[in-house]
Amino acid sequence: MKLKVTDVDLAAGGAFIVILGENDAIDLDLKSGDRVLVKHGTKEVVCIVNISENGNKIKTGRIGVFEEVLDKLNIKHNATVDVSLAAKPESVKHIRRKLFGHTLADYEFKHIVDDITNDRLTDVEKTYFVSACFTNGLTVQETVDLTKAIVASGDRLKFSKVTLDKHCIGGIPGNRTTMVVIPIIAALGFTIPKTSSRAITSPAGTADTMECLAKVEMPEEKIKQVVKKTKACIVHGGAMNLAPADDKLIKVRHPLSLDPLGMMLASVMGKKYSVSANHVLIDIPVGKTAKVTSKKEGLRLKKLFKLLGKKLGMNVDVILTDGRQPIGNGIGPYLESIDVMSVLKNDPLAPQDLHKKSVYLATQLLMMMGMTKQKAWMSVHRVLDSCEAHTKMLDIIKAQGKQKKLEPAKFTHVIKSKRSGKVREIDNHIIAKAARIAGAPEDKTAGLFLHKKIGMKTLKGDPLYTLYAINKPKLQLAIDFVKENNGYLF
Amino acid sequence: MKLKVTDVDLAAGGAFIVILGENDAIDLDLKSGDRVLVKHGTKEVVCIVNISENGNKIKTGRIGVFEEVLDKLNIKHNATVDVSLAAKPESVKHIRRKLFGHTLADYEFKHIVDDITNDRLTDVEKTYFVSACFTNGLTVQETVDLTKAIVASGDRLKFSKVTLDKHCIGGIPGNRTTMVVIPIIAALGFTIPKTSSRAITSPAGTADTMECLAKVEMPEEKIKQVVKKTKACIVHGGAMNLAPADDKLIKVRHPLSLDPLGMMLASVMGKKYSVSANHVLIDIPVGKTAKVTSKKEGLRLKKLFKLLGKKLGMNVDVILTDGRQPIGNGIGPYLESIDVMSVLKNDPLAPQDLHKKSVYLATQLLMMMGMTKQKAWMSVHRVLDSCEAHTKMLDIIKAQGKQKKLEPAKFTHVIKSKRSGKVREIDNHIIAKAARIAGAPEDKTAGLFLHKKIGMKTLKGDPLYTLYAINKPKLQLAIDFVKENNGYLF
Repeated sequence: MKLKVTDVDLAAGGAFIVILGENDAIDLDLKSGDRVLVKHGTKEVVCIVNISENGNKIKTGRIGVFEEVLDKLNIKHNATVDVSLAAKPESVKHIRRKLFGHTLADYEFKHIVDDITNDRLTDVEKTYFVSACFTNGLTVQETVDLTKAIVASGDRLKFSKVTLDKHCIGGIPGNRTTMVVIPIIAALGFTIPKTSSRAITSPAGTADTMECLAKVEMPEEKIKQVVKKTKACIVHGGAMNLAPADDKLIKVRHPLSLDPLGMMLASVMGKKYSVSANHVLIDIPVGKTAKVTSKKEGLRLKKLFKLLGKKLGMNVDVILTDGRQPIGNGIGPYLESIDVMSVLKNDPLAPQDLHKKSVYLATQLLMMMGMTKQKAWMSVHRVLDSCEAHTKMLDIIKAQGKQKKLEPAKFTHVIKSKRSGKVREIDNHIIAKAARIAGAPEDKTAGLFLHKKIGMKTLKGDPLYTLYAINKPKLQLAIDFVKENNGYLF
Repeated sequence: MKLKVTDVDLAAGGAFIVILGENDAIDLDLKSGDRVLVKHGTKEVVCIVNISENGNKIKTGRIGVFEEVLDKLNIKHNATVDVSLAAKPESVKHIRRKLFGHTLADYEFKHIVDDITNDRLTDVEKTYFVSACFTNGLTVQETVDLTKAIVASGDRLKFSKVTLDKHCIGGIPGNRTTMVVIPIIAALGFTIPKTSSRAITSPAGTADTMECLAKVEMPEEKIKQVVKKTKACIVHGGAMNLAPADDKLIKVRHPLSLDPLGMMLASVMGKKYSVSANHVLIDIPVGKTAKVTSKKEGLRLKKLFKLLGKKLGMNVDVILTDGRQPIGNGIGPYLESIDVMSVLKNDPLAPQDLHKKSVYLATQLLMMMGMTKQKAWMSVHRVLDSCEAHTKMLDIIKAQGKQKKLEPAKFTHVIKSKRSGKVREIDNHIIAKAARIAGAPEDKTAGLFLHKKIGMKTLKGDPLYTLYAINKPKLQLAIDFVKENNGYLF
């Protein structure tokens, strides 16, 4: 069927979408969510159909076209395109099979991931896939196949024959060990290119915090230059084409905060595999308000990560760490970056928990390279004490592109203890949410600064933490939020 | 945040959708799929956010608004609205619980169904609900609760203290027993208001076939008049507000053709409950290419239907019938309506299988009312032989509004047997698809007419069926489709 293009002047954020009038939809036997092949000259693209039920905009004989489709076909308003029914992608059958409880083969995951990468699946279909993986679970082999498929969907960067990496499964506010460990390891001569994420539901991701110091968005070529120069980088992985299918799956996981185990594993290992890392240390914080709430669950995860690493030909080690409270004092990009730099500079006021945990992680990574515990520990301390790690961080910042120095947020409010005693628990969720309500991570200098940690003695009226915001209303929102429950238990 | 309205001149088909520019979305900490409360004066509505990533259409400070939202708030282009973050509906938590394998309580189903009815859930969230019900299943009590919630979401029609109904779970082309059984039962003085569906993936639904003879779309008041006058009706239930949540769930079940057992039961029983039927006969055809492929599966379904009926205070009986081949000769709305009227008119050429099955169903329904088998059988034959049932059908047609007589489709092609022998099997799927490709149900007179049924002797070259289409291209598409496999096995 020949239809004339109406430029609806909307973008879908990646997906190829067209809008048909009701009459044309009936003639083509189409429902919303069905697919059509849209052709113009030699170019063609499979699009998902929306149906306009009122005839105002999309009249019979016309087709409403989103930006992405216009670009792909290189056409403009009033162009004529040929529209025909496109079959449902084969992968919908595989998703259906998974939903019915079957185990999928490698080629089926490849099909599914390929169709996700190329926006051939609707949100509803992707949701069924996530849901099927969640409720029916993935076997280890399925997780391997999904990981490989996800990696194959994007580019794979090659750096050095020996490439290290570290990863934390997240959930602990302020936990910016990456930005301390990377310069330590690089200062010791190892290659450790780190791609990090931005915050999704937390007050800061490593990419957000690093961005207070250096540029984190750059093309793959530039990353290669940075790593060549400094042996390391700390950049944002999301904008790169490393595992596009993973990013698209995360979008449909988000509305229900679903984290199907197999998918989480595939997502983490996929990102490591795509930077060709072959020695990977994984940090699993365990605590009442962490992502992993029991040691048992942590050990199970550890086993799975190691097994998956083996199947992917990667040397993987996993450590369970203390996840009972935030790490460092600052929560929010700018305040966290201050913590990181103070540890690297051996500032006597630097947060000791961030220092200790970073040293521990770096030592473990070196031990994975065959060093004895003692030698590893001494090496880490040498580059920290001599400020070689600090110099390395400055090199990395310079290579990535230094940012203008930020000024602390102007509006602050001290949250005081309502009682005396010893801090027994700190709720990661409350602290994270308070920082977010104050404006982090969008307002880089917003967040909070902890004065008390677990085990510290506190008198009634002592400051627990200071809230930072860039304007009064946001500060007030955060104050209101912690009024009932400030996250501290005595 | 105050934003100025841009009328994007699009309709979403029910859902409330607004589009924000990227900058405003960041300021409000919103992602695609999040919800906002949009206020204008005293009116407000919760909308789902799409984010426009290019600034062409939705500039900062503006909000793109779909038709449904404009109508709801009674506003126009350039109006100013107040936009604020809206919490996720409570029901998302219940869906999450179901996904985690928990059993839901009645109030949780009520929440979910209420939010679906009022378009407060996104497609992704609804998909998770369907998927959770599918993979984790629903207990009988959950099915009862879901059914009650679905019914409560719409209107409930009251007719007579004793109200009969029949339902077939579908899947058999041509199976138009409803249109024979309803006039028989009504002619015997019982009240039997029937709401039917249109075809979704079949070549005709009862509503499509009835529409060749009478109007089937009418307001509830008019239906009440028809039933008062004739004790019966055969109308389209979809446009009525009987179980709107069910219709919305079906939309997300469609892309993967998912039929979660509990949802199917809730859907069927919900429709019966909403017309206050208290004696319901359910027909489950069993056959290799039917929906239910084994007697065992049929018996399990029977048990569930009866149990559910009991819990809902309805007298339910279930019969398993022969689903090995189409019923009647005509497939497609017009051709099926000819079959129905020929049975009611005692035409000697009327399809005997449709006659026999209808008599059987009507007899069973009467037995549910306490009649002996013999008396029921004789009553049915009396009103058929005396043409009282035929007269009743004409009364119903007149009361609903008679349609102009249709002319048979002009383009026909006879599919001939490629071999001699006795017909052993007929594939319901192939026959249904061939009729659909020929144009049914949109082209009312398109479809096919069967000359041979299972058990009939056939010589090579004998006609198996005739295809009907309203133009040559559609006829050719159908011919091409059955070239390889005409659906007959000898």
